[in-house]
Amino acid sequence: MRAEIITSGTELLLGDLVDTNAAYLSRQLRGLGITVHYRTTVGDNEERTAEAIALAMRRADLVIITGGLGPTVDDVTRQAVARATGRPLVLHPELLAAIEARFRSFGYRMTENNIQQAYIPAGAVVIENPVGTAPCFAVETPTGAVIALPGVPRELEYLMEHAVIPYLRERFGLHEVIKTRVLKTCAIGESAVDQRIADLMQSRNPTIGLNAHPGQTDVRITAKAATEEEAERLLDEMEARVRERLGDSIYGTGAQTLEEVVLQLLQARGETLAVLETVTGGQLTQRLASVRDVVGFAGGIVAAAERAVSAIGATWDESGDACLAAQTVANAVRHRFGATYGLAVVGAQGGSAIAFAGPAASDCQILTRPTRDAFGRTWVVTTALNLLRRHILSR
Amino acid sequence: MRAEIITSGTELLLGDLVDTNAAYLSRQLRGLGITVHYRTTVGDNEERTAEAIALAMRRADLVIITGGLGPTVDDVTRQAVARATGRPLVLHPELLAAIEARFRSFGYRMTENNIQQAYIPAGAVVIENPVGTAPCFAVETPTGAVIALPGVPRELEYLMEHAVIPYLRERFGLHEVIKTRVLKTCAIGESAVDQRIADLMQSRNPTIGLNAHPGQTDVRITAKAATEEEAERLLDEMEARVRERLGDSIYGTGAQTLEEVVLQLLQARGETLAVLETVTGGQLTQRLASVRDVVGFAGGIVAAAERAVSAIGATWDESGDACLAAQTVANAVRHRFGATYGLAVVGAQGGSAIAFAGPAASDCQILTRPTRDAFGRTWVVTTALNLLRRHILSR
Repeated sequence: MRAEIITSGTELLLGDLVDTNAAYLSRQLRGLGITVHYRTTVGDNEERTAEAIALAMRRADLVIITGGLGPTVDDVTRQAVARATGRPLVLHPELLAAIEARFRSFGYRMTENNIQQAYIPAGAVVIENPVGTAPCFAVETPTGAVIALPGVPRELEYLMEHAVIPYLRERFGLHEVIKTRVLKTCAIGESAVDQRIADLMQSRNPTIGLNAHPGQTDVRITAKAATEEEAERLLDEMEARVRERLGDSIYGTGAQTLEEVVLQLLQARGETLAVLETVTGGQLTQRLASVRDVVGFAGGIVAAAERAVSAIGATWDESGDACLAAQTVANAVRHRFGATYGLAVVGAQGGSAIAFAGPAASDCQILTRPTRDAFGRTWVVTTALNLLRRHILSR
Repeated sequence: MRAEIITSGTELLLGDLVDTNAAYLSRQLRGLGITVHYRTTVGDNEERTAEAIALAMRRADLVIITGGLGPTVDDVTRQAVARATGRPLVLHPELLAAIEARFRSFGYRMTENNIQQAYIPAGAVVIENPVGTAPCFAVETPTGAVIALPGVPRELEYLMEHAVIPYLRERFGLHEVIKTRVLKTCAIGESAVDQRIADLMQSRNPTIGLNAHPGQTDVRITAKAATEEEAERLLDEMEARVRERLGDSIYGTGAQTLEEVVLQLLQARGETLAVLETVTGGQLTQRLASVRDVVGFAGGIVAAAERAVSAIGATWDESGDACLAAQTVANAVRHRFGATYGLAVVGAQGGSAIAFAGPAASDCQILTRPTRDAFGRTWVVTTALNLLRRHILSR
């Protein structure tokens, strides 16, 4: 089966936006064993968008177009798909009801132009969009389909995973299973990971790839098989071999985040964590506070040093020993929020001091990497969370 | 003048690489006043690449293709351009000499397949590439040219700046200037913005486009003119007309963020802000703490309601009046950090209560939108920041 991807949006043609959706869709189709020969980007112009769709339909079985489903005059995808597929646009009553309901839930009133969003090509299959207002649809063709999806990455990715991929598998009987598993490591560099598993990275199936992030490296294992079970078995075998090499540098798998793992470790022990940060732009607090369905986070304070310290009723250690000061603050924030552990990230000679304080122990590290840029902040926060994780695991 | 961009490389179609070259080239051409109607991505396949070039030549005057100029068998751009333009590939002696010289300078010996790189379409203009080994060239056509450039971003950007842009300006007498200005609005839906300026959005020059984000809509004005001054004048005129319609729903321009604008308003008045949030995952604190070079942010506290309140030594208003409770907390956090204003976002009946407290006044809003997903949290935080912004402006 052959597919083409069309991304629409004048902001793409102006270069204001880098087209990450195109790469995302390419990876998803590849995961289904679908070949992509061409990708096209068009602006918010109905005629050119319709031409691009018509051309893609001549060259491929499946056409996926993103963007241009909004309520404004420059959202032309509905009309363009209608023209290219020779179907009139018709009002879809259930879509209209769904849009109205969503607006009510926001406390907004639906405007005239939102009604346009309820018009889709005659006979199109509606793809429900629980994460946005743009209605999506698939027009089935003799050899495949033209599928219109939102340009908002969050919505696009949700709909691909929950609606489009299952639909494509079922409708076109795509049976080759390609499964991926990600092992997440931290506090070990990409090249160190590479050295320890270089031989495994030669494997053809499963294949192994590395993705580096600040302070973290993902090990991505991808297996092809005829059945889910077979693919899972291949992944299990390779995961076991990778774990032998990397040990507890692997903190989690898949979508797990380091902050989530730390809070789960604490929750399992009936313990909690409070944090204070002065040089990391609120990232430590925000990452912990964003973890869902875990109760381990007691609270966080973000402020410049003096204000932060006075806010928790502590006094800044003047002895000049950054580690001592950081541990004092970690202990104070722990008491302020009535938490089991306190974790502090404070400035120290252009870098930072990361410290935790708990019922039985406290520890500190001095990090020289500056926290002015986002990369540095992320690296420091990750290192601080891992310092606490190591301590919890060691008990 | 009209252009098309073709980026070639199977790694792009597999999604292993995000196509930043396409966005870069789009920005460069836009700056020259050249309109781009289509962008295409093809794999390392001679026939399909030739077809893509031929199609682009029918639709546009200028075609720029990147990638596929290397020495390996899957580098097919030279052959594809030759096919599409109907020119045979001929050995270019000076290119061969240049390649040999470059290899000598590295202490490498030139391999057979490097000689392939010295073959370019007959009559093509050579574009010297001092930053790489891939020879680049332009095949001039009756109305324009087909230009082949490297896929390596560093090489591509160097050659565009130092060779291609000067060539295009001189060869095609391009004197047009294109300038863009973005007006950022919040607390007004995209469709409401659309309704208020629908007539202005019909304008051909400047053009207007909308970009929606949670709780915010960007209005993008793009003007074409013969001179910088003329373009700025067109932008000024249109900006004034848009501002008449949208008033102080416009909080800023360009890259300004709402949190940055709020802190700048406070800084200009010698005032500061402290925040407390219980249901927005630390986003309010993190956004304010991440603003650079502005001193208005005193600090933030992120925690579940009871803990947050006790952390600032306040008591939770039990009367069940969420607004009263939120204002009490806003006032308490303000005092805790010694700030001029306190801003609080707390849970209220599945939604949230947003409140500020200042020296002279305090106010509150109840929001029904849930804060469970990132979109909802961003929307609530934006609405809270805008509540304070409106108050500061109203004084």
